[in-house]
Amino acid sequence: MEQRGLLTLLSDFGLSDGYVGIMKGAIARVNATLTVIDLTHQIPPQNIALASFTLMTAYAYFPPGTVHVAVVDPGVGSTRRAIAVAVGEDAAHPTAYLVGPDNGLFSGVLAAHTVITAIALTQPQYWCTPKPSATFHGRDIFAPVGAHLASGVPLNQLGQRVAPETLVTLDLPPCYLYEEPVELPQADAVLKQDTAAIAPHGYKIEGYVQAIDHFGNLITNIPGVQVFGNQWSVLIDHTTLPGKETYSDSQPGDLLALVGSHGWIEIAVNGSSAQARLNLGWSDSVCVVVSG
Amino acid sequence: MEQRGLLTLLSDFGLSDGYVGIMKGAIARVNATLTVIDLTHQIPPQNIALASFTLMTAYAYFPPGTVHVAVVDPGVGSTRRAIAVAVGEDAAHPTAYLVGPDNGLFSGVLAAHTVITAIALTQPQYWCTPKPSATFHGRDIFAPVGAHLASGVPLNQLGQRVAPETLVTLDLPPCYLYEEPVELPQADAVLKQDTAAIAPHGYKIEGYVQAIDHFGNLITNIPGVQVFGNQWSVLIDHTTLPGKETYSDSQPGDLLALVGSHGWIEIAVNGSSAQARLNLGWSDSVCVVVSG
Amino acid sequence: MEQRGLLTLLSDFGLSDGYVGIMKGAIARVNATLTVIDLTHQIPPQNIALASFTLMTAYAYFPPGTVHVAVVDPGVGSTRRAIAVAVGEDAAHPTAYLVGPDNGLFSGVLAAHTVITAIALTQPQYWCTPKPSATFHGRDIFAPVGAHLASGVPLNQLGQRVAPETLVTLDLPPCYLYEEPVELPQADAVLKQDTAAIAPHGYKIEGYVQAIDHFGNLITNIPGVQVFGNQWSVLIDHTTLPGKETYSDSQPGDLLALVGSHGWIEIAVNGSSAQARLNLGWSDSVCVVVSG
Repeated sequence: MEQRGLLTLLSDFGLSDGYVGIMKGAIARVNATLTVIDLTHQIPPQNIALASFTLMTAYAYFPPGTVHVAVVDPGVGSTRRAIAVAVGEDAAHPTAYLVGPDNGLFSGVLAAHTVITAIALTQPQYWCTPKPSATFHGRDIFAPVGAHLASGVPLNQLGQRVAPETLVTLDLPPCYLYEEPVELPQADAVLKQDTAAIAPHGYKIEGYVQAIDHFGNLITNIPGVQVFGNQWSVLIDHTTLPGKETYSDSQPGDLLALVGSHGWIEIAVNGSSAQARLNLGWSDSVCVVVSG
Repeated sequence: MEQRGLLTLLSDFGLSDGYVGIMKGAIARVNATLTVIDLTHQIPPQNIALASFTLMTAYAYFPPGTVHVAVVDPGVGSTRRAIAVAVGEDAAHPTAYLVGPDNGLFSGVLAAHTVITAIALTQPQYWCTPKPSATFHGRDIFAPVGAHLASGVPLNQLGQRVAPETLVTLDLPPCYLYEEPVELPQADAVLKQDTAAIAPHGYKIEGYVQAIDHFGNLITNIPGVQVFGNQWSVLIDHTTLPGKETYSDSQPGDLLALVGSHGWIEIAVNGSSAQARLNLGWSDSVCVVVSG
Repeated sequence: MEQRGLLTLLSDFGLSDGYVGIMKGAIARVNATLTVIDLTHQIPPQNIALASFTLMTAYAYFPPGTVHVAVVDPGVGSTRRAIAVAVGEDAAHPTAYLVGPDNGLFSGVLAAHTVITAIALTQPQYWCTPKPSATFHGRDIFAPVGAHLASGVPLNQLGQRVAPETLVTLDLPPCYLYEEPVELPQADAVLKQDTAAIAPHGYKIEGYVQAIDHFGNLITNIPGVQVFGNQWSVLIDHTTLPGKETYSDSQPGDLLALVGSHGWIEIAVNGSSAQARLNLGWSDSVCVVVSG
């Protein structure tokens, strides 16, 4: 069943100022009965790629029809569009609604689903004010629009329809199987697809660190689906990290590689931080060897 | 329409302990159906002035009648009063209710509105316990009182009426126009007032940094209303920062000045942190030149 | 009255990733009308003892029957059990429900109450998926099980009954009165018990720092009940800190000792951080002298 009434927030606003609370106030002014869930507000300032990653790994765990408002918006006040998008394979029951700036923030979700409808937000009656500020569209446009959408206002009423192919998407590098780019499956698909067939003789995949989590786990852009059912390992400098099922398959303090809960290959230390241990950071190269 | 049922929380408790969760437990014991919204819990410990700033820039975006519970309370356990205040211009429909220690925390909001009723919290039946701890009135008094108020208990029942002029307010320095102090308008007023008339020949305003946000924007105490409709700039050391409409009116990495979403003049760096770039901090002087 | 419909979350996931939001999505998929309250998500990674402390000092302020989901889970993917436990003195009206890994996380609460029923979570129909990931049982098992429990599913249906005495508890050192270990009362009991009788001639209690809060207060494992009604002080190196009622009984900047709002003796600095002032950390020894 489609879930209206539920709205998530993602931003780079941090939690030390009143900005996030103010967005929730703007939502409550539209409809104080909505359920509002924070994904995170600690995206590094202006990091659209990490915001896209976070939303991509989270949205599938929410009820169908949830409205996701995301505001990482370095172009606020410029001519970048404000958008609301319905995505999914069943036009009558969207998987998710996305509301935010048209700057690539939704790339991860858009790569995994068909766009049902995309709207440029041009109807000020659904905003906080007809004259939005030049610096805080989260408060003035996105939060109230998300609240109206979650309250049942039809997507079409929020503005003018735009062509799905005009939506901005990030041009992130793929991972490479030998020299060929690998089609990046969406996280959910990773857990379902059977790829034993594609690895009869062993092969090598090159990717990079696309995110680092709170525990210091280094999350690559190499889908776990590429290694399921095979022996595999990660090569870093002159070290080989064995691919394991879970942290507990290693000793405390050991480096290991595993397929994380989000479906991507990650590098971890049992009980500690791989980021602190290794000299690796965001966008550094990682190589996976699958022995077939 | 007045909104009961909605309550915000502001504190310096941080998010690493259970203190904030405990206040929400105390609220749920009174009424588990209330909607509770965090403004922030990361006010620097005991910084009443920043707490007042945060509440002042946030409350206007909440539904009328919202109950704001704020706990930055260095004097807990002393003889400082515990208060609940209704503010607004229509006694039958308060703009907001304020609950917390009487220590200046509500200065920003009180400066912008008429006090309808002020109550010293002396009725223990609305507390968590008739014998509150000497160190955590957020849990024992303010959260449950806020919950009762948001549940419809009349303000008068919570304790004894006190004279509005006895409420503690902070004695913060104003900003100065030439040598004359400028009346500080409330944030909301800033966005409405037309002041082109007051600047026929150009003038200078001196103020200070009253807050620094998560992005490193330096927020002054100079109201944006003082510069609307004029050419203006900010002087720092030997540098002049041009007044702009929005971040995007400058190049990435450029220093600029603008009127922030809260209505105050702020100093920013497009895509980065002004605090990190400049050698300026909280309470440092800032000078604005308006060329009329 | 027993409160179903209310669920708290405690973890070491931090707030910078999507993990906490994802757990809330998993809860909303079960029942979007539940009230979800964060205790904290900033437990230091894998620190089960601090998680137990935080839950122990918080649960008593929530409505009876609240479901507490706690996930600090270094053994995820190993053979450690997943459990749900009802505790309290009235089997028909549990004080609290506890859901999480069986690793000692609930030690503090379990020490204070009778276990009514303990269940090993073996019924996948109440999980997010019949094949949970090897690394994120918060999402796949604990959050949805907690949501079902808070929605009224009987505890017994969630899996197989296990003997309460098999539940894992932490083996934390007690505090010592002279050479005798002191029975650690539960925080709630601390505030009720009359112990003036036990200290006729004066005595010494040795304990340690069991937690450090956001303000830098050093919270010992010595129950306040041991000093009520007496003159007392804390000895550190060659310094004696007088036992006070509240922060305001000392001058700004003074070191002092007091019984904190959680019922334990703590060391504080009026208006500042005792952790920053003293060279003391987690698990360091503390000595209290009671002069009878």
